[in-house]
Amino acid sequence: MEARALAGLPEVRPGDDLGGLLARAAGDALRAGEVLVVAHKVVSKAEGRVVALKAIDPGPQACRLADEHGKDPRLVQAILDDSAELLRASHGVLITRTRHGFVCANAGIDQSNAASQGDLIRLPADPDASARALRARLRALTGAAPAVVISDSFGRAWRHGQCDVAIGIAGLRPVDDWRGRPDSTGRDLRATAIAVADQAAAAADLVRDKASREPAVVVRGLDRHVTEDDGQGAAALVRPLAEDLFR
Amino acid sequence: MEARALAGLPEVRPGDDLGGLLARAAGDALRAGEVLVVAHKVVSKAEGRVVALKAIDPGPQACRLADEHGKDPRLVQAILDDSAELLRASHGVLITRTRHGFVCANAGIDQSNAASQGDLIRLPADPDASARALRARLRALTGAAPAVVISDSFGRAWRHGQCDVAIGIAGLRPVDDWRGRPDSTGRDLRATAIAVADQAAAAADLVRDKASREPAVVVRGLDRHVTEDDGQGAAALVRPLAEDLFR
Repeated sequence: MEARALAGLPEVRPGDDLGGLLARAAGDALRAGEVLVVAHKVVSKAEGRVVALKAIDPGPQACRLADEHGKDPRLVQAILDDSAELLRASHGVLITRTRHGFVCANAGIDQSNAASQGDLIRLPADPDASARALRARLRALTGAAPAVVISDSFGRAWRHGQCDVAIGIAGLRPVDDWRGRPDSTGRDLRATAIAVADQAAAAADLVRDKASREPAVVVRGLDRHVTEDDGQGAAALVRPLAEDLFR
Repeated sequence: MEARALAGLPEVRPGDDLGGLLARAAGDALRAGEVLVVAHKVVSKAEGRVVALKAIDPGPQACRLADEHGKDPRLVQAILDDSAELLRASHGVLITRTRHGFVCANAGIDQSNAASQGDLIRLPADPDASARALRARLRALTGAAPAVVISDSFGRAWRHGQCDVAIGIAGLRPVDDWRGRPDSTGRDLRATAIAVADQAAAAADLVRDKASREPAVVVRGLDRHVTEDDGQGAAALVRPLAEDLFR
C-alpha cells in the first residue's frame, strides 16, 4: 500500500469545481482501483457549508452551555443546530450525535483553516452524496473512477489524539467482514470486521501536512476493496442507537 | 508512505525469539526511520501469554455474567482477571478497562489464530516493555533500530468495524501535537493532536492478511515521527480516568 498527498490546492471557495481542482492536482495520475481521500473541509467549503459566527443568533440553551463551558454562544448554537443529540458537555468540549449519526466533538464544526477568521466550517450535509458526486465528476473529467473517501478527524473517548475516519464514501467497502471465514488454523474468525475505509482515512492522514493546503491523498494497493458501484457509503459505519452502550 | 507485510512467520511458540524471526523475515530490509508494526498475538504467544480454557476455574461473578450473556464462564473469568473494571456487558460482549488502562472488548482476549482450540491469547502484560525489548533485539541483530508498534484491533463505541491501534510503542511519537502551531491561514490550530502511532497501526492492518501468518508490517515514510530514544510508549495514549466522559 502506498499513500501520497496531491500537490496543494488553491483556497477553495463556495461553488468551486472541487473535482476539477483535484483532477488538475492529480495530473493524469488517478487510476481505477485507487482511493482518493479528501479532507472534508475542502468539500464543505466548495459546497458553501460555511457560516459566519456574526450571522448566528444564539438561543437560551446555547447561551447557558456557552456560559458553563467557556465557549462562544454562537459557536454552541451552530453545534446544536447540526446535532441530533447532545451526549456530553465537559472539558470545554461538546460531544454530540450529528444529524448524520456521527458521534464526535462539536458536531464536527471547525474553525481551523477557514478562509476568514470568524467562519465556521460545518460537515457536508450528506457526505456520502458528496463522495458520489465527486467520484462521478472525476470519472467525467479523467475517465478514471477512483474510490472517494471524505475524511474528518475524530477524537476518541478513551484515547488521546485524533484519528481520521471516513464520513463519506463512494466505491470503497466500508467494512471487510471476515466473520465466518477461517483463521490461519482453519477455525472461524469470530469478531473480525475490518473498518477498511476508516483505516484508509487514517493512513491518508499520516501523509497530509495539516498546515499546508494538502487536503487530498491518493492511496494505492486497496484495489480488492474498491468497487465499481458506489456502495453503501459511510452511513453503513454508523452503529445504530439500539446498539449504543455509551449514551 | 508505504506499508508492506513481511513474509509469513512460522507458528510462534512460548519462548521463541520473536526478534530473530522478524529479522529473518525482513531479510536485510529493516532501516532506521521505519516503523515495524507487529500484531500483538505473536508477541503474546512468544511471551507465553496463552492460557488454556480448561485450566480456568470460574468464580461466581464469571458464572453469572456468562449465563446472562451466553458466554463460556471460563472465558469470562479470564476477561475479569485481566480487567481493572467492567464497563458494559451487552450483545454478548464485555467492554472492560484492562489493567493497562485500555478500554476494549473482552479485555483484548482472543481465541482466533490460537495454536490450539481452547487456548486464549491475552494481551502482553506490559506491551510498551515488549515493544522496547523487541526494538533492542532488532538493533542487536540487524544494526537497525526501526520503531516498533505492537497493535491490536479495537472496536469502536459508535462505529461498526474494528481499527488497529497501538498498544505498545518504542521509538515512535504516540501523538503529534499541532496545538498552537499555525494553520494554513496563520491562525493557531485549536485541537489537532494526531494519533500517529494509532494511525500507523491502522495503515499496517490494511496490508496484513488476517488468515495467513503475516503479523508484521513495515511502514516507511514516517521518519519524522521516529525517535532515537524509545519515548513515552502507548501508555501516553491512555486517557486518564478523570477525563473519561463515558464510564
